[in-house]
Amino acid sequence: MKEDIRQAPIGVFDSGVGGLTVAREIMRQIPKERIVYFGDTARVPYGNKSKETITRFSEQIARFLLSHNVKTIVVACNTASAYALDTLEKELDVPIIGVVRPGAKMALAKTRNGKVGVIGTEATIGSGIYDAYIREVRTDAVIYGKACPLFVPLVEEGLWEDPVTEEIARRYLSELIDLDIDTLILGCTHYPLIRSVIGKIMGEDVTLINPAYETAIELKQMLKERDLLNDVEPALGSNPYQFYVSDGAEKFKQFANSIMKYGVLSTKTIHIEDY
Amino acid sequence: MKEDIRQAPIGVFDSGVGGLTVAREIMRQIPKERIVYFGDTARVPYGNKSKETITRFSEQIARFLLSHNVKTIVVACNTASAYALDTLEKELDVPIIGVVRPGAKMALAKTRNGKVGVIGTEATIGSGIYDAYIREVRTDAVIYGKACPLFVPLVEEGLWEDPVTEEIARRYLSELIDLDIDTLILGCTHYPLIRSVIGKIMGEDVTLINPAYETAIELKQMLKERDLLNDVEPALGSNPYQFYVSDGAEKFKQFANSIMKYGVLSTKTIHIEDY
Repeated sequence: MKEDIRQAPIGVFDSGVGGLTVAREIMRQIPKERIVYFGDTARVPYGNKSKETITRFSEQIARFLLSHNVKTIVVACNTASAYALDTLEKELDVPIIGVVRPGAKMALAKTRNGKVGVIGTEATIGSGIYDAYIREVRTDAVIYGKACPLFVPLVEEGLWEDPVTEEIARRYLSELIDLDIDTLILGCTHYPLIRSVIGKIMGEDVTLINPAYETAIELKQMLKERDLLNDVEPALGSNPYQFYVSDGAEKFKQFANSIMKYGVLSTKTIHIEDY
Repeated sequence: MKEDIRQAPIGVFDSGVGGLTVAREIMRQIPKERIVYFGDTARVPYGNKSKETITRFSEQIARFLLSHNVKTIVVACNTASAYALDTLEKELDVPIIGVVRPGAKMALAKTRNGKVGVIGTEATIGSGIYDAYIREVRTDAVIYGKACPLFVPLVEEGLWEDPVTEEIARRYLSELIDLDIDTLILGCTHYPLIRSVIGKIMGEDVTLINPAYETAIELKQMLKERDLLNDVEPALGSNPYQFYVSDGAEKFKQFANSIMKYGVLSTKTIHIEDY
């Protein structure tokens, strides 16, 4: 019997651990799905690298995920979504979802005054992609982008609720407060982990948007429309979530288990440049 | 006529821009030498990655430098020196110099009480390599290592003399002060750029060791002993310093010109994984 494509796994990738915030939303919202996650920990971070390089890396990763027969690919990294999504969509036969469009959509639904802030890596902000998506729908919207390059190292160092993180956040965010935005997109998958610091500085009147949440909703919707939703519960002990990295499997596993409800049982290291 | 090997360039590599602090010492101390510099900006940083990955990256870079007919290779990165030097020495026919042994040698010459601190990346500190080199010579020495993972992003963000950098440095360094060290090795090529902050916290009684300086001295000595020193002044307009990176040539050039006395005229991007 031909294997049912609906039972094939969803491929999810990121430059490292940040995309786990997207993977955990997928696990919450569509718990019957299998996932193959890849984190490019040998080449992390992506946020200060060029479009050409990020695209080449993303193509290698897509080939790796396809070798696991994934039915769709989620680009769970804002930088890769900003730079490589178009190319992947053209090159691949499976449907691709990034985190930028869902985040932009949610910001559009939430903003009242049309003034939206976006924080992210240098690459994501430099690409102007949130701006483009939002103004496609609402031409009078005004988007203010701000790169926050120290947030990723601060998160990875575990300083999630620390005076230093607050001080740095205050420097990055004060200009956005002055600009009277009412909505702020957390345009990097690491940022939800310091959501409370960001929220404290921005104040209660600013809605924080976590694109991970909306991405999982769009993914579910897309799978449904294409009759790709898995309706078979994973068998007990079948390990529905597989994790791969390009370096440091043990460290990745530790971090993953610190933010995931589901136990990350094992992580394998592969040579991504061979794909 | 056979080309004189003494006029061949010196290969210098690092994970990114940090090794430029070593390159500029070489330029100062042996100004007649040509240099081919490679910064692995597509895969930077190395400091939190594994030995296996750093070794594989270093081997690719060595092959690239040899394709430029370098007469020797300087591993201008503490992490790569800690993890990959042994392997490169075994595999290559040209002499190799790292930054760790020269730094350790200088610390031995400077310490009075035999209590030496080393700061560096997680990988460098985790390797225990400074410890091993120093105690090879002075068995009663006591080495205290401290990983400072936020220093590199803070330096790259340009916060060289900033209250945040001071606060982070105070956290990392306070335990070393309590341990009564009299010598501190700056075991990462980025750290000389925040030397003044580190010096302020450690106080005047602690000697700061910059391995870049001693590395250039050892390099000169080694070239002399092997009759490899170049005694021919580079011709005017011959561009004796060539820079290559794996990503972001323009950004690299800007940074380089901010810390180098010699103008970095051009930088080329190459695909390092093809080597």
